[in-house]
Amino acid sequence: MMKVYHLYSGGKDSSLAAWILAKLGYEVRLVTVTFGTLDNWKYAEETARRLGFEHEILKLSGEILERAAEMAVEDGRPGRAIQFIHEKALEALASKPDVERVSDGTRRDDRVPYLDLPKARSLEDRFGVAYIRPLLGLGYRTINELVGRLFEVEIRESEELEKSDYEVELRHLLRKRGIDPLSIFPKMHYQSRVLGWKEEKLTSSPSRTARVPKN
Amino acid sequence: MMKVYHLYSGGKDSSLAAWILAKLGYEVRLVTVTFGTLDNWKYAEETARRLGFEHEILKLSGEILERAAEMAVEDGRPGRAIQFIHEKALEALASKPDVERVSDGTRRDDRVPYLDLPKARSLEDRFGVAYIRPLLGLGYRTINELVGRLFEVEIRESEELEKSDYEVELRHLLRKRGIDPLSIFPKMHYQSRVLGWKEEKLTSSPSRTARVPKN
Repeated sequence: MMKVYHLYSGGKDSSLAAWILAKLGYEVRLVTVTFGTLDNWKYAEETARRLGFEHEILKLSGEILERAAEMAVEDGRPGRAIQFIHEKALEALASKPDVERVSDGTRRDDRVPYLDLPKARSLEDRFGVAYIRPLLGLGYRTINELVGRLFEVEIRESEELEKSDYEVELRHLLRKRGIDPLSIFPKMHYQSRVLGWKEEKLTSSPSRTARVPKN
Repeated sequence: MMKVYHLYSGGKDSSLAAWILAKLGYEVRLVTVTFGTLDNWKYAEETARRLGFEHEILKLSGEILERAAEMAVEDGRPGRAIQFIHEKALEALASKPDVERVSDGTRRDDRVPYLDLPKARSLEDRFGVAYIRPLLGLGYRTINELVGRLFEVEIRESEELEKSDYEVELRHLLRKRGIDPLSIFPKMHYQSRVLGWKEEKLTSSPSRTARVPKN
């Protein structure tokens, strides 16, 4: 069985990537990162359950979140911090025993998080895994087309959304330190949370698919 | 119906990409480029037939091949020429009436052909299409794993293989001009041709897949 561990926030990108992995025949295990400062991972867990995927939590050290917060304050914008957390999350996932494939929902049109080719290969080589990004070759039109066909999605401003991405705990830590997250994150940053399937469903088992003769 | 026009050589990469597109629910039409100097497009046509995909030929101007040959001679290597042909092929495909989506089998680990983000967006904007690259987020391990599961593949040196990629006509034109292709193309350049399915098959229709409840 080809098992892949897929970083999962419950948003439309990581949900679409999970669906693609399932369609390609992978056994998909969704993994949501938490630093343990909030329980917002439960939104991803709930969405994973509704979509019918296996799900687990990956606890990362609070030091990573603190270093990320310092970067965000230093830069006055969140890009480097989000990138840093994402790389640490991939490394933590890839270093788990028995993990042979890791995956995420990063896409062509996003600047961060994004691993360039040397970084992607380094991740694969250091940890002996395959790194799969099902959305990397898809533009926003294609992503919107597929998401629109597949999922019921709720879209709101980041500040309000009940969601399980790194940003939520990062904002929370900044607020605790007396820093207004709105001074760092873009004002109108819409984020998505997947609520469930529309009509589509997980991949079928091989025996249920049409057979095309060899000749 | 979501129809995608997919540049197709009959090799393992463009065949895998076509399979992924079908899995994602697209109606896939395979398109093989020819300059009309050889009939090697027939190998792609034959593979397309064996795999059960629709297939058509896209005739490009011989001037494109001639300009590419000049580039290859000038550079002493084929990269810029292959890139040039590929961009012209995508543009020709995207400019056809009724084409809303174009696709290819370009992958993460290849240097050429490859459209960087500005070029990919420019293609989409100039022609009003979505440009989909199913393999862009996949490394060689993942590609080998999927290809090995899906296809019967024949692998040989480029010079010998009966194949329908740009290289064949480019080599032919160089030879006609008295230039040894081996002075330009890497000596040991293995290429693949897909012969047919192993056990897998085209995507199933939605009604045949398992249904996961919404709640």
